[in-house]
Amino acid sequence: MTKTFDYYFDFGSLATYLAHTQMDKIKAETGASPIYCPMLLGAVFKATGNSSPVSVPAKGKYIFVDFKRFADSYGVPLNHNPFFPIITTTLMRMLTALQMRSDTRMSEFMDLIFKSIWVDALNLNDPEVVARVLREAHFDPTELVNLANEQATKDRLRDVTTQAVERGVFGAPTFFVGEQIFWGQDRIEQLKSALI
Amino acid sequence: MTKTFDYYFDFGSLATYLAHTQMDKIKAETGASPIYCPMLLGAVFKATGNSSPVSVPAKGKYIFVDFKRFADSYGVPLNHNPFFPIITTTLMRMLTALQMRSDTRMSEFMDLIFKSIWVDALNLNDPEVVARVLREAHFDPTELVNLANEQATKDRLRDVTTQAVERGVFGAPTFFVGEQIFWGQDRIEQLKSALI
Repeated sequence: MTKTFDYYFDFGSLATYLAHTQMDKIKAETGASPIYCPMLLGAVFKATGNSSPVSVPAKGKYIFVDFKRFADSYGVPLNHNPFFPIITTTLMRMLTALQMRSDTRMSEFMDLIFKSIWVDALNLNDPEVVARVLREAHFDPTELVNLANEQATKDRLRDVTTQAVERGVFGAPTFFVGEQIFWGQDRIEQLKSALI
Repeated sequence: MTKTFDYYFDFGSLATYLAHTQMDKIKAETGASPIYCPMLLGAVFKATGNSSPVSVPAKGKYIFVDFKRFADSYGVPLNHNPFFPIITTTLMRMLTALQMRSDTRMSEFMDLIFKSIWVDALNLNDPEVVARVLREAHFDPTELVNLANEQATKDRLRDVTTQAVERGVFGAPTFFVGEQIFWGQDRIEQLKSALI
């Protein structure tokens, strides 16, 4: 039996980008694989009464310093995105659609979007920029937008988000090993310990 | 020259209790000593627009699990205090007064109050309970209350709190090594790295 862990996330979360860069390492060190659970973080915040750390200016200033320290320790690039917050609804729907179709390019799509937001610091609030990024990576933007707009896609993303809140998720990334919950990219060591 | 770091805290913070249990280890491993900066966390929250993590129920539930994991890894006791939040104004003023007098029992006082709140789970919102705890440890409650009520004590605690906010503090514990800021008991490893 393959070990797995549930991984709830949203592209718009800087902490999740950092966690995402560590997935291969987690797999290599634990033999466990993530079950990707795309959710809408904004909806999670609304349902739980939580809010982005940047809503407290001093905290927002600190966490960027903190995330940069982790990025440096991981040896990965990280840039402030001046267009933050990125409204990720369509992007998360595209990902959900790829997952529902068991599309083999799902992983590539995730890498692309995380990099576009948190390394290339692009304005993915602009559909034209999204389309260009997708085309350059040989995805079909029109097809993905159509898939994103299907009711079944929207329903699935909403259901996963609702389920996340029911399981106790209030932020991203959140990991579950069985019913053990771990919140934050800074809990990856604890996650790994629970998986070994 | 002795290495030091500034340590902003409030007895009412569970995370700070955990950090407090690690002070001797930090000193032993780095040779650095904390400069204790007692502040009022409630006033910091008000000034920065921050709030206690327990104000988000799902987060409050999670962080106790998270703190318990750290307590277990540190090998220290931790109990939920049913009287939380503890209004710590008088306790922080007492500590400030001891610090202003360079009282040799300051360290013992800190250990006592942290233990009373986060191990013995006592109701330190009740002045009678505070008086009993202090008497049992051979402190003079009347003298400490009188010191706490001195204007100079109140002014000093307010000044340190104001200074904390000016330096970017929004939660507890917060550490500074020079102008490098570290927030949270879960940043002790980073703090140690900055001190070595």
